[in-house]
Amino acid sequence: MARDAIDQLVRQLSRLPGIGAKSATRLAYYLLQSDRTYPETLAESIRTIQDRVIRCSVCGSYTEADPCDICSDQSRDRSLICVVEQPQDVSVLEATGAYRGLYHVLGGVISPIDGVGPENLTVGDLIHRCDAGVEEVILATNPTVEGDTTALYLARMLEERGLRVSRLALGLPVGGDLEYADRLTIERSLRGRTNLGSG
Amino acid sequence: MARDAIDQLVRQLSRLPGIGAKSATRLAYYLLQSDRTYPETLAESIRTIQDRVIRCSVCGSYTEADPCDICSDQSRDRSLICVVEQPQDVSVLEATGAYRGLYHVLGGVISPIDGVGPENLTVGDLIHRCDAGVEEVILATNPTVEGDTTALYLARMLEERGLRVSRLALGLPVGGDLEYADRLTIERSLRGRTNLGSG
Repeated sequence: MARDAIDQLVRQLSRLPGIGAKSATRLAYYLLQSDRTYPETLAESIRTIQDRVIRCSVCGSYTEADPCDICSDQSRDRSLICVVEQPQDVSVLEATGAYRGLYHVLGGVISPIDGVGPENLTVGDLIHRCDAGVEEVILATNPTVEGDTTALYLARMLEERGLRVSRLALGLPVGGDLEYADRLTIERSLRGRTNLGSG
Repeated sequence: MARDAIDQLVRQLSRLPGIGAKSATRLAYYLLQSDRTYPETLAESIRTIQDRVIRCSVCGSYTEADPCDICSDQSRDRSLICVVEQPQDVSVLEATGAYRGLYHVLGGVISPIDGVGPENLTVGDLIHRCDAGVEEVILATNPTVEGDTTALYLARMLEERGLRVSRLALGLPVGGDLEYADRLTIERSLRGRTNLGSG
């Protein structure tokens, strides 16, 4: 069949998350009709991504140099570690510009159903890092059943070692609407209400 | 900055139609975390697409061999030509399996605002092909102002040459709902109503 190349590209693009057959077809024709340099540049970026990006041997986040920029930045607060599930969570937190400590990537969450226990995560490395001068740990796992369980497990273990442990606040998203918020979120925002008098 | 490779991939992916910064980031991390062969296969498909796919010198559709499969298929009805705007419209019509004639890709529509006249489209080639044994032309330009104008222009020109000219039917989409159809579509489906007695 003389249209193999397009069909093949559509099939490959359909494997991407959130890209169905129709979107993949649209993307394939866009690539076919774009200026010549674009498909080449895009292909090169895709082809080399796994070679260029590695995991930091200290915190586990994505980096091109080991240790990563954050771990080797001496101006950051080395007494503070923020624990996240995935490497991409680091960029999300960094984008806020509101955090100046270090990170630790767990590589997942405790989930007995999926057969993931603490031994499958980088919990050992975290304990090891915490024993070397860390004072506070912020648990930034996702606010899900598994994320909460993991945070609870880590909190107990770290508090035993005399560390200050905190968790990201739960509540209404900024710019959100009470009318559209779910019951659980409203409940948490009530329990975690802040005193306006004290700022 | 040590995260250049990811940022660069996100930037390249964001250029795709319908892919915003958030989707591009999601796709980039998916590519980074997928099995090793996938980014390579995808990159190769993207890199070679413009080299492998050419335009058929007869009908103007996308093909890997010139003339295309459809133009060189002697079992197809060579007295019938379906005129479409873009090469991708050919695959859409072919997917129905309901058409057995040939195609002609205009390469756009007449649009004075965009400075596109009949001389910028493959109208000359169409006339030339129609003079060689074609009996009927189906105008399958999109049901838009420009598509209708183009169809009207071609219809006059082709009818003068004694050809039978038709246009794709307008009406309700199959499985559609009267309640959600727009006024113009309902009006066209009324005017084009079919007699149930005669099938």
